[in-house]
Amino acid sequence: MSVIKNLGELIRSKYHKVVVDLVETGLKAADPKVAVMKNITVKDNTLVIGGRTFNVKGNVYVIGFGKASVKMGEAIEDLLNDLITAGFIIAPKIPVDIRLRKLKVLRGDHPIPGENTLRSTEEVLSLVRSADSDDLVIVLISGGGSALFEKPIPPISLGDLRELNRLLLKSGADIKEINTVRKHVSMVKGGRLAEIIYPAQTVALIISDVVGDPIEFIASGPTAPDTTTFHDAVKILKYRSLWDIIPRSVRAVIERGVKGEIPETPKPGHKVFEKVRNSIIASNIISLKAMEVRARELGYNTLVLTSMMEGEAREVGKFLAGVARHVATYGEPVKKPAVILLGGETTVTVRGDGIGGRNQELALSFAIHARELRNVVLASVGTDGIDGVSSAAGAVVDGETYSEAVREGINLIDYLRSNDSYTALSKLNRVIITGLTGTNVNDLVVLLVH
Amino acid sequence: MSVIKNLGELIRSKYHKVVVDLVETGLKAADPKVAVMKNITVKDNTLVIGGRTFNVKGNVYVIGFGKASVKMGEAIEDLLNDLITAGFIIAPKIPVDIRLRKLKVLRGDHPIPGENTLRSTEEVLSLVRSADSDDLVIVLISGGGSALFEKPIPPISLGDLRELNRLLLKSGADIKEINTVRKHVSMVKGGRLAEIIYPAQTVALIISDVVGDPIEFIASGPTAPDTTTFHDAVKILKYRSLWDIIPRSVRAVIERGVKGEIPETPKPGHKVFEKVRNSIIASNIISLKAMEVRARELGYNTLVLTSMMEGEAREVGKFLAGVARHVATYGEPVKKPAVILLGGETTVTVRGDGIGGRNQELALSFAIHARELRNVVLASVGTDGIDGVSSAAGAVVDGETYSEAVREGINLIDYLRSNDSYTALSKLNRVIITGLTGTNVNDLVVLLVH
Repeated sequence: MSVIKNLGELIRSKYHKVVVDLVETGLKAADPKVAVMKNITVKDNTLVIGGRTFNVKGNVYVIGFGKASVKMGEAIEDLLNDLITAGFIIAPKIPVDIRLRKLKVLRGDHPIPGENTLRSTEEVLSLVRSADSDDLVIVLISGGGSALFEKPIPPISLGDLRELNRLLLKSGADIKEINTVRKHVSMVKGGRLAEIIYPAQTVALIISDVVGDPIEFIASGPTAPDTTTFHDAVKILKYRSLWDIIPRSVRAVIERGVKGEIPETPKPGHKVFEKVRNSIIASNIISLKAMEVRARELGYNTLVLTSMMEGEAREVGKFLAGVARHVATYGEPVKKPAVILLGGETTVTVRGDGIGGRNQELALSFAIHARELRNVVLASVGTDGIDGVSSAAGAVVDGETYSEAVREGINLIDYLRSNDSYTALSKLNRVIITGLTGTNVNDLVVLLVH
Repeated sequence: MSVIKNLGELIRSKYHKVVVDLVETGLKAADPKVAVMKNITVKDNTLVIGGRTFNVKGNVYVIGFGKASVKMGEAIEDLLNDLITAGFIIAPKIPVDIRLRKLKVLRGDHPIPGENTLRSTEEVLSLVRSADSDDLVIVLISGGGSALFEKPIPPISLGDLRELNRLLLKSGADIKEINTVRKHVSMVKGGRLAEIIYPAQTVALIISDVVGDPIEFIASGPTAPDTTTFHDAVKILKYRSLWDIIPRSVRAVIERGVKGEIPETPKPGHKVFEKVRNSIIASNIISLKAMEVRARELGYNTLVLTSMMEGEAREVGKFLAGVARHVATYGEPVKKPAVILLGGETTVTVRGDGIGGRNQELALSFAIHARELRNVVLASVGTDGIDGVSSAAGAVVDGETYSEAVREGINLIDYLRSNDSYTALSKLNRVIITGLTGTNVNDLVVLLVH
């Protein structure tokens, strides 16, 4: 079954077919079930996970937290079945369409932790605390896990924790800065979950929504060695002008940490990590690589330009038109037929009141600026299936989209001006419809020049 | 002698040295004298131009028009000396620092043709009209040539021609659209100069400031086969809503052309072009290729990403930070040590009242967004030597520029917000100073990741 629901209308030529095929390949590689299935094999009492073999002697516990973790849990159940002793998945809401037998779904709060998160975290901890050295704990981690799995260091109250999170989220701090602070007020983040699980074996399967896949920052790295310190947390809070306005209890905990009165998070080389395997099973670069392999199979020369794309969506679309033009003219930086792949996340500065998102805006801008190029097709898609405030995941455009719009009396430049990319592109049957995919490895862009 | 006047302060490491070396290489390749010297060799009465040999039997005339053409003429004189029979160069102003012996510099008008352009064009035409089949006419073409060399089809008056140009320049039409119209109201553009020179041999040496180097659009292609028609001119004027407001004489000429009452410009395959050789001797891609060769000599893996870069300068800078991060992490799309080269022209939407230009703004934005990367150096430079409203040509920045600025109490984000890139980067001794270079092949960007 394809992830893209409106394949038919998107395929207008054999080149569109290739581009849609590649988008589908990228989305499939990011699918939580596909990713789990691809990374685990089971034979009798032996599991091979991320290339490493585990003989199950004791209990197998499965715990998970994050937006994709219920789907990951479903796949784990299918694979491991009766091998699983027990397990819990913490999710933003209890799914109605998924039946789990061995695993129980618990409610957590997102994007700011609340009572549900704290209560559910306690349940998870009481399960794994009992694990001993013959046991295996499989941890399913995905985006959103930071809020869904949390236990603050006393005496930080839930209210104080929520206030800290609110302040961090609106401070302009990036995800690494935010998670550095979070790790140092938490009893489970920054590798501390791995400490709790020890001496049992930890295998973490991770879907990354953080650019560059730094495992210690995905869901604040509960099973990862922490390279940051209490001192770093102080520096960030001061740099972001938050030190004097965060709750007193938070400041006190961090100050005690700096003095050594609270132990640091476990660092790289700590003995705990001898029993931990962290494996990223889906990420932007994994999807890009799957797309690259597929493009080569289909006879294309490929170039992965970046998995860390950033910039205003419409300007990136315009820039890519300039890249396409160079490929078309000089066969450089890749020879034709060429597929250039990009991943990451652009931004949209909203000026109009239209309906759209960053992927459709990138595609719309490309369509405008590549309008004299005959031999190009571009797709841009958000892997979570929902691009901005629209019901589409992205769009597929080509060098004729602009003139087709002119014939239909649609002025694409006006639509772009009012951030109305979805309205324009859906009228032209150019939007990609997937519905919510239940995963997120950021955005994927395919640029084909033939 | 180096083109960059402040080499010393720019070289902070061996990597900065490489980047500055590459910028210098690109600027040198674009230098009118260097470009002419590289493309012409003379031995007795034999000239080799662009790989083709000409035995001088008759007269050698040299004519030129464009912003770089005086410098081109100087180089031609040095090379050909007494072989030159006579010649004229039309320039926006008579240079005081250049002494020509055989060639005479005439004044033309720029950016809109005026009395000077018309009078000087007549002088040039009277010289080459007399050329016969043993003669050779060397035509030196560079940016600005469209306005400097012009003779409208009667009864279009100078006033009407100027009005047409004014309307075209503010219509939003691109250079190809503008020059398509210009070619069809002119007795010298769109290959018509080649017709006048025929049956003498034409050798045109061209410095391109048009993205993609389409010879028929550089200075409106006086020696190039024209692929556009009177009919295209009508379509463009209608599309740009100018058809009803252009001067009546212009409309009349184009209408007569459509009816066949005025002959079309010579098209590809026309016999005239058997005696014409058009040779692009400097252009953005030629500079990029020279830089690529040099980077390889210096031991770097290279990638020419595009010679047709476009987009808002600060967003392109941000995007390139994402490319640099991917190279640093994955050694892709080129292995480290890597040099990625780009050319073209970005744009700046001016919001503040600072001093700067598109190259410095791109560099400043890169410095902000690549601030956590240790192993990157980027340069962006305008080949004409004047970036925007500043006295610098561009800038060289690296992953430490941001923290250096913080130490100096300079908030780069504020400077970028007010379009004040020159002020910020000159305080940090990061701007490239060349002065006016007398050439223009658009902008060059070097991104080094080690």
